[in-house]
Amino acid sequence: MSPERAARPGGRSARVRAAVRAATLAELAEKGYQGLTVEAVAERSAVHKTTVYRRWGGVEGLIADALELASGEPWPVPDTGDLTGDLRALAREVVRGFTDPETGPIARAFVSAAVQDPAAARALHAFLAARHEQSAPVVRRAVARGELPADTDAAEVVRTAVAPLYYRLFVSGEPVDTATADRAADAAAAAARAGVLRAPAEPGGHTPAG
Amino acid sequence: MSPERAARPGGRSARVRAAVRAATLAELAEKGYQGLTVEAVAERSAVHKTTVYRRWGGVEGLIADALELASGEPWPVPDTGDLTGDLRALAREVVRGFTDPETGPIARAFVSAAVQDPAAARALHAFLAARHEQSAPVVRRAVARGELPADTDAAEVVRTAVAPLYYRLFVSGEPVDTATADRAADAAAAAARAGVLRAPAEPGGHTPAG
Repeated sequence: MSPERAARPGGRSARVRAAVRAATLAELAEKGYQGLTVEAVAERSAVHKTTVYRRWGGVEGLIADALELASGEPWPVPDTGDLTGDLRALAREVVRGFTDPETGPIARAFVSAAVQDPAAARALHAFLAARHEQSAPVVRRAVARGELPADTDAAEVVRTAVAPLYYRLFVSGEPVDTATADRAADAAAAAARAGVLRAPAEPGGHTPAG
Repeated sequence: MSPERAARPGGRSARVRAAVRAATLAELAEKGYQGLTVEAVAERSAVHKTTVYRRWGGVEGLIADALELASGEPWPVPDTGDLTGDLRALAREVVRGFTDPETGPIARAFVSAAVQDPAAARALHAFLAARHEQSAPVVRRAVARGELPADTDAAEVVRTAVAPLYYRLFVSGEPVDTATADRAADAAAAAARAGVLRAPAEPGGHTPAG
């Protein structure tokens, strides 16, 4: 794709977006968030720099767009037959995403960007809200199997299973591996079974009986 | 304190350090990590800019030093009589630290700095390792009361109690309050009671019987 064609608005829009996004991910993998520049993304995607600035605004917009596209991607929701197995699979997937030599630098760059920039933060928040929602069947199936109270807060179970991994990676700087993933998952499963991860009662909420 | 006196090395070293640290915290509270400059800290502390550069290197060094001083500060370890009460108090203290209008911006700036800069990250990691260690008596007392298995991993219980709060604050961008603190604490207590937060067995470790 030549810069001239890519820069033309209209029908080629989706292809331009895909090229810019691929270039953004490749640059993030190589250089991280702090090394990301519009110039490098433009050169790598063969999309003209002024087009990138006009459509994406800057590096924050590039990050936000890459994350938005990622939110819509299919994501394997585990179904191992029990809650602990499913949560371990979810937690291991998070560890894999951050430690894999290919995806790790990109995933870390997204979180770094979110800490530094409000647009990237909004994109990460939307991405994770989608992931929490996509993971909810794990909890709903456990409820259906009678493993958990019916009013268990699915998103909170997922947060509890993954939070210790993010805490180690981005706050305390401690290592993560399969064992830390399993321990975080087991803790979330134990808490959910103990009934402490239920949906909070709504203040003044209506009951079905009115 | 005049810049000339402050800049003199030797006996006034501790006072200069305290003044620079106070100025760093005040600047962080007002402007956050991304707004922190050596110039503003120098002006605010009445310590000469070249002294600040020479002794602290730059903003990363200022952050790291402020955190190092904070690690040594006394910290109230709760003793409510049971594990859930103690962990709730710890988790509420974390929420308070990040949401208080005075300390919140500083605490958030420390985490932001750590995500962006290796020196700040090392300082935050040391700070939190000290906090995990300082909080361990909460778990040891629960073991002594018979609430928890003897080989419970104290630091892991503390991590589990605070991780969902950091996850909300710095990753998923969801709100934190007393209720979220209590829920995170209750989850950690339930997981610890269920015996899933024990110290991992050391591979090839010795048993007392040899």
